Amino acid sequence: MEKFKVTFFPDNKSVLAEKDKTILSAAISAGVYINSVCGGDGVCGRCKVILKKGKVSQQLNGIITEEERKNGVYLACLTNIHSDLEVEIPESSRINFEKLSPKEIDERLGNLYSKAEDIHPVEQRIKEGIFKHSPFATKIYLELSAPTLNDSISDLERIYRALRAYEEFPVIQTGLFNIRQLGELLRDSEWKVTLTLGKRNDTVEIVLVEPGDTTNKNFGLCFDIGTTTISGQLLDLNSKKILGTKAAYNQQATFGNDVITRIVYAGQSQGLERLHQAVCNTMNQIIRELVAENNVDLNDVNCIVCSGNATMIHLLLNLDPTHIRKAPYIPTANFLPVLRAAEAGININPRGLLSCLPGVSSYVGGDTTAGVLSCGLYQSDKLCMLIDIGTNGEIVLGNKDFLVACAASAGPAFEGSGVTSGMRASSGAIQKISINKTNFEVKYSTIGDKKPRGICGSGYIDLLSSMLEAGIIDKGGKIKAEGRRIRQAETGKEFVVCFKEEADSPADIVINEPDIENLKRSKAAIYSATAILVKHMGLSFPEISKIFIAGGFGTYLDIEKAVKIGLLPDQPRSKFIFIGNSALAGANQVLLSNQAMLMADNLASKITYFELSVDPGYMDEYGQALFFPHTDLGKFPSVKF
Amino acid sequence: MEKFKVTFFPDNKSVLAEKDKTILSAAISAGVYINSVCGGDGVCGRCKVILKKGKVSQQLNGIITEEERKNGVYLACLTNIHSDLEVEIPESSRINFEKLSPKEIDERLGNLYSKAEDIHPVEQRIKEGIFKHSPFATKIYLELSAPTLNDSISDLERIYRALRAYEEFPVIQTGLFNIRQLGELLRDSEWKVTLTLGKRNDTVEIVLVEPGDTTNKNFGLCFDIGTTTISGQLLDLNSKKILGTKAAYNQQATFGNDVITRIVYAGQSQGLERLHQAVCNTMNQIIRELVAENNVDLNDVNCIVCSGNATMIHLLLNLDPTHIRKAPYIPTANFLPVLRAAEAGININPRGLLSCLPGVSSYVGGDTTAGVLSCGLYQSDKLCMLIDIGTNGEIVLGNKDFLVACAASAGPAFEGSGVTSGMRASSGAIQKISINKTNFEVKYSTIGDKKPRGICGSGYIDLLSSMLEAGIIDKGGKIKAEGRRIRQAETGKEFVVCFKEEADSPADIVINEPDIENLKRSKAAIYSATAILVKHMGLSFPEISKIFIAGGFGTYLDIEKAVKIGLLPDQPRSKFIFIGNSALAGANQVLLSNQAMLMADNLASKITYFELSVDPGYMDEYGQALFFPHTDLGKFPSVKF
Repeated sequence: MEKFKVTFFPDNKSVLAEKDKTILSAAISAGVYINSVCGGDGVCGRCKVILKKGKVSQQLNGIITEEERKNGVYLACLTNIHSDLEVEIPESSRINFEKLSPKEIDERLGNLYSKAEDIHPVEQRIKEGIFKHSPFATKIYLELSAPTLNDSISDLERIYRALRAYEEFPVIQTGLFNIRQLGELLRDSEWKVTLTLGKRNDTVEIVLVEPGDTTNKNFGLCFDIGTTTISGQLLDLNSKKILGTKAAYNQQATFGNDVITRIVYAGQSQGLERLHQAVCNTMNQIIRELVAENNVDLNDVNCIVCSGNATMIHLLLNLDPTHIRKAPYIPTANFLPVLRAAEAGININPRGLLSCLPGVSSYVGGDTTAGVLSCGLYQSDKLCMLIDIGTNGEIVLGNKDFLVACAASAGPAFEGSGVTSGMRASSGAIQKISINKTNFEVKYSTIGDKKPRGICGSGYIDLLSSMLEAGIIDKGGKIKAEGRRIRQAETGKEFVVCFKEEADSPADIVINEPDIENLKRSKAAIYSATAILVKHMGLSFPEISKIFIAGGFGTYLDIEKAVKIGLLPDQPRSKFIFIGNSALAGANQVLLSNQAMLMADNLASKITYFELSVDPGYMDEYGQALFFPHTDLGKFPSVKF
Repeated sequence: MEKFKVTFFPDNKSVLAEKDKTILSAAISAGVYINSVCGGDGVCGRCKVILKKGKVSQQLNGIITEEERKNGVYLACLTNIHSDLEVEIPESSRINFEKLSPKEIDERLGNLYSKAEDIHPVEQRIKEGIFKHSPFATKIYLELSAPTLNDSISDLERIYRALRAYEEFPVIQTGLFNIRQLGELLRDSEWKVTLTLGKRNDTVEIVLVEPGDTTNKNFGLCFDIGTTTISGQLLDLNSKKILGTKAAYNQQATFGNDVITRIVYAGQSQGLERLHQAVCNTMNQIIRELVAENNVDLNDVNCIVCSGNATMIHLLLNLDPTHIRKAPYIPTANFLPVLRAAEAGININPRGLLSCLPGVSSYVGGDTTAGVLSCGLYQSDKLCMLIDIGTNGEIVLGNKDFLVACAASAGPAFEGSGVTSGMRASSGAIQKISINKTNFEVKYSTIGDKKPRGICGSGYIDLLSSMLEAGIIDKGGKIKAEGRRIRQAETGKEFVVCFKEEADSPADIVINEPDIENLKRSKAAIYSATAILVKHMGLSFPEISKIFIAGGFGTYLDIEKAVKIGLLPDQPRSKFIFIGNSALAGANQVLLSNQAMLMADNLASKITYFELSVDPGYMDEYGQALFFPHTDLGKFPSVKF
């Protein structure tokens, strides 16, 4: 096969690429990072490059403007190599992890670190105190008796003896690393040491031995590793106090927006390693910031608990996710052993432990287990439902007697991705909107009261509901009104939420018919999943006493409006409880209590997975939900426009 | 402190050394290996170097001859640096591990690999079959059902489910390494795999997952790591068959002959690391030879069991042995966790496991535990004794109700070290001797019927006994006869066993009065230890029904003569059972049976350590034993000269 030399500037990195391969694949091989949110499908338009020299062929799809075409701009993913090439990557298309500081990468990704106040751990208050305080890593201070001729047991046995006098542990393990240090450490510290104990795969491990009394320095982290957003919390394991919470954009998003695109990318040369690195980078960055802000030494962070869907956990641990995507959809492991964080590339104490919450199946992961754990649904006498709205939506139905879960591929629209002016729930995102029914003028508020930069999930719920009420769109989602904010664009009709003059954005902030279609499909996927699950179990919505709503909506979600657009079932509003990030809350509980860890194992074994696509009624139900709020208005009696 | 540049040739390696430091210590810092069996005490005479340039001061002790002095020969250990130096190391003084092949190093050390036939596992026959066959590493072949939509548990859970159907293991662990391979491996092998299971610290670990059925390839090693000699065996873990046994000189001997010298050396810069490397080199070399001769793939060697004294085990695992030597004599650990062999630097399958037999105290190690296990003393209704004759001699007294052990620092004389013409029990060693009572002429036989190169332990026992019978030496060990074989040397009178003309040796093979003194102290240390131990327990020799004799005497030990010189107590000869290398035999049993492994733990906890030096009668008893056979002839009624 003929090969050509492709050189990327300003990096000046070259690679040999086969004829007809895309410029994007050559860039990946060269280790040059080009932004590509859609994973090379030609739809996101973020991988624009400038051809300086050489012959190519291209697929045109309307994303490149006439003017750009004149200036030699091509989409890297849709342009094929026909000769040696010289390619310039403009700043706007690149994510140069090597050159940028973590903060700069973040800025580039339009990301924002949230302060602790921004993420209210509502769910923590709900279940506060139900599990005994027995953190994943525990410190014990021992004053050992010095050896004598009459008491001459070895150093290691001396420690075991003292530990067993303290508490009867069934099996204690210690690695060679700690044993190697014992002789000097015990004598230098005059036989006064602090042990860090970690629960590890049904045994207790001596993770660390430190001189003196360091019991007051015992910190841990919990994480929710989302496809789009990664959230982390630093805790004082003694006081159970949350010292800080941060959320950051998952750097993996540059390789594709959903788990399927990432699994495909993982199959490419070095793809898995890059995805693994990306999640580690994001987590390590969050950790660095959390410890710095709280004056905590990284060496005093002894453990970490992670929740995430099966694909995210596979990528974190560098496990091949291929078979999650291929029938019959088998992950490598749902229950993972406790590892050292360092084995996964996470920087805490080098001996520190990492535990991942157990998952149920390829599409109902440890984040769902964490959600069930944190909302307490599994303890309820009455029937409850948990709806976790995300790129992969999960719905759990049950009570103390049974638990059944399904997954709905909702897409990232409600996380502000894959829609024209979408953005994450971060600074500058429009989150509340109202529209004047007469003149269609818009009022909005943004997160942090900044100039608007885009619209986040809760903003879209408000926007759709307001457009329906104002009669701007019909039940099918078509724009039928006229006015100064409504215009015809290449991609169909669009409504201008905010003109660029008043925005912190290079373009008007708009919603167009394809966006509405996209959001409609998302809400239809979530709603129909809840409906099918209830029907499958021979139940009905009125029998459900509580509906927990979880997801990355930041601090705001208008339940009323979510029902109005048909995202949530039309049930008395008092049934709904918005619990924010339930996956993070569950990880927090596991970090603080070994009882919660055991309960998570128990729950993951107990939850039955229901595969929606095998239900014969699913496509019908989904089709009927592709209206606002629904084809069958009898199902939404309280909704009137 | 003034520093001088010392350059060693032919290596051309330089190092900066402080004024007044010895040339030997400079060589150690420079990473140049000079032979130094006595560890720098100035007595072995092996560290001769030639001073080419520079000023030194030296201690004279008669080892350097007048002629050598003229030629600029110095003992590196007794020569102090006073200026920049250029030093030539003659071939005879060097052990250049980097340049020599393992075989050449071995040749240089006067070492010899024994064939399996040379080491008769007498002791294995004794206890054959008392433990259930359940090797340290077990292989299980599984034909898994392929996953379907209705049976969609993860790859790892699928393996666990099949394993639990096979046998109910309490806790199964698997490391990330194996989990990472599962997805591809299971599918490529069409769900037919072989698991290697290892018992590890009260849990079962999946050590390896291999495609297809490889159960017929499961090998293991057992080792006795002696201060002087290291012996290893390769076993087929399925058939329990010993495929080969090899012994080699412990390369550590170049850094000192006994454990105390080595502990001191370990405290020097890089000393511990070098000692650790030396034992690894020796073991890896034995392993390479064993697998090559038996056409076994190193990757099919899944586990290794080691016995050795506390110092040897510390050095193997790179644990600081300092406190073994300092009161109150505390090892870092007597009971060690199961490790990966790779963690200790031993080359078998990279995931393969290493277990060390548990020890009792700093001076009664896992080799003694192995000895007790293999001779079956702990099961006996009647009183038994185990005497393991080595550089560090160990004596165990007991039966099924109690076990008490002590250690006697016998020195390496009976291992053929520290005596003028001594050598290990290997090719060319004189092992049997008789002397004509009239003309003092000598008859001898050597191991392998080669020209004599020196005298080994059993040869010295024969020689002393024959010299006593012929009246060449008196009860005190002084040479009192005259003849062509008896002459006055610088170091006192000596007896020529073999003139160099008929030997494979640059000098006559002799025994001199200091040698006899040395051997006498060794036998006195062993005998008095047995006597004190018996007395301490309120018992007497006639009450003992069996006396097991273990040690590195190769295949030959004349019990009659050992009693005659007063090494062994004067008891009916039928009580004595020579069991060869009992430490290796015990390690063999632990390798083949998990029951034996548990029993070893049990025994190490059960054996009481008795510190000889605290017994007020010990010095008296030792002093009385410094005669052949003993001061009190009433204790040796059968011995007549």
